[in-house]
Amino acid sequence: MLSLAAHSLCVRATGYQQSLRSIATVISGNKTSKIVRERLKKEVEKMASQFSGFRPGLVVLQVLHSIMSVNENACVHGLIVQLPLDSANCIDTELVTNAVSSQKDVDGLSCINAGKLSRGDLNDCFIPCTPNACMELIRQTGVFVAGKHAVVIGRSKIVGAPMHDLLLWNHATVTTCHSKTPDLPEQVGRADILVVGAGRAEMVRGEWVKEGAVVIDCGINHVPDETRPSGKRVVGDVHYSSASQRAGYITPVPGGVGPMTVAMLMENTVQSAQRFLLKLRR
Amino acid sequence: MLSLAAHSLCVRATGYQQSLRSIATVISGNKTSKIVRERLKKEVEKMASQFSGFRPGLVVLQVLHSIMSVNENACVHGLIVQLPLDSANCIDTELVTNAVSSQKDVDGLSCINAGKLSRGDLNDCFIPCTPNACMELIRQTGVFVAGKHAVVIGRSKIVGAPMHDLLLWNHATVTTCHSKTPDLPEQVGRADILVVGAGRAEMVRGEWVKEGAVVIDCGINHVPDETRPSGKRVVGDVHYSSASQRAGYITPVPGGVGPMTVAMLMENTVQSAQRFLLKLRR
Repeated sequence: MLSLAAHSLCVRATGYQQSLRSIATVISGNKTSKIVRERLKKEVEKMASQFSGFRPGLVVLQVLHSIMSVNENACVHGLIVQLPLDSANCIDTELVTNAVSSQKDVDGLSCINAGKLSRGDLNDCFIPCTPNACMELIRQTGVFVAGKHAVVIGRSKIVGAPMHDLLLWNHATVTTCHSKTPDLPEQVGRADILVVGAGRAEMVRGEWVKEGAVVIDCGINHVPDETRPSGKRVVGDVHYSSASQRAGYITPVPGGVGPMTVAMLMENTVQSAQRFLLKLRR
Repeated sequence: MLSLAAHSLCVRATGYQQSLRSIATVISGNKTSKIVRERLKKEVEKMASQFSGFRPGLVVLQVLHSIMSVNENACVHGLIVQLPLDSANCIDTELVTNAVSSQKDVDGLSCINAGKLSRGDLNDCFIPCTPNACMELIRQTGVFVAGKHAVVIGRSKIVGAPMHDLLLWNHATVTTCHSKTPDLPEQVGRADILVVGAGRAEMVRGEWVKEGAVVIDCGINHVPDETRPSGKRVVGDVHYSSASQRAGYITPVPGGVGPMTVAMLMENTVQSAQRFLLKLRR
């Protein structure tokens, strides 16, 4: 079991790069996630002072010991199942995901949490960490979401589908695009806010992007790069150098959505622990 | 308890009106729902012949006797809670909706069923009756949904939100519009398939509609009409006479989505009974 209070991440905090006229402002996930983690640290300290020795507990299961026993363990407030499941035998991923108690499902992947999010009950569910991270980064820009046209590329359970929900219930008009969308450049061109979770290296070209748009890139792709000692480098789903010429705000890869996603997992676990304590008091 | 085998609805079956050049083909919910009900009748007869005396059972609760006892009653395969709840005291509608067993939730409104639908597990859930009806009517036109741009107006739990899901997982690129959408006419103008569940009489004007679009109108609004004995008439959310000049296919109100919605409730109940029998056999 990981204990959040003891959890420490190696973070490089970079200063916010202010935009030159024609180049997008970089939305730093490193910087924002550091702020979140510092806030969470204080909240954990507060809980520990109110309930002596209390610590939010998070369990990450990689093989299936016993979800049920973790569900019932009062010291654990968050439980995530690392996918794909590490098993020699075929396992029904849906069945496993839904075996996690919806009260501890800090990944927000069970159908109970997905159902609440998709139907707008945002205060009564766990929001999956990547979309939650994207939303937090969008908020950082100061751009209002309500009334904007948002475009999401991808409809995965972890990124695209919940991202659609989150933008919709923050009152954007939302278009979801995917592999069957025939006119992706035109759809992207209408986006005031663009979130990409397609899993294809640099597929969104800068010339597609609407002037001044907020561009959030969830992609993590390894591409060959002979100039690097490792022989490869990490790029997003957006062609960064061209997109940053047109976007108003853009997340880098790495250092954008990634570190914020980890911070949001901590956030959800702390939130779960707070709900647990709230029930104890009643 | 209603028994489906004994259930009969007063239906006027109208012939399909073939379009004149410039006028949309009318998608008749009356006609299509009759076909569905005839098919369901045969399926119910088949079940009764295989399991002597077996009948799909549907319960409609208007006041809260006991959801739990209905959940456990093996003779009931579908349970819907009539909203708004008829009660002198304040009742948490969410709590009640989610108390219905997800295996009997033929309205598809529990968060478990909503979660499955929103994340693409369409074969493992109950689809809410109105969107299911719309999808069936769209299929009737012969227009392929995959790759089309669909626009949904409204994001309610009963119509708009599940309609988005259904179109998305049938591989349309889907835009959801709502009260906060500032450029509704432009959004509507891009729709190859338009589904309207806004609850506002004739709000979608014909001149907004894309030439040749499929227009599905879920609205049921009563407007004053002094020429009628009742002093009012029923209209949809789409201004029918102008929209039918531009659409390729359009549902009338009444006689469009309404009768199909009832047929879909029967469909879900029969499906639930079939799943029940399948489990018995194992």
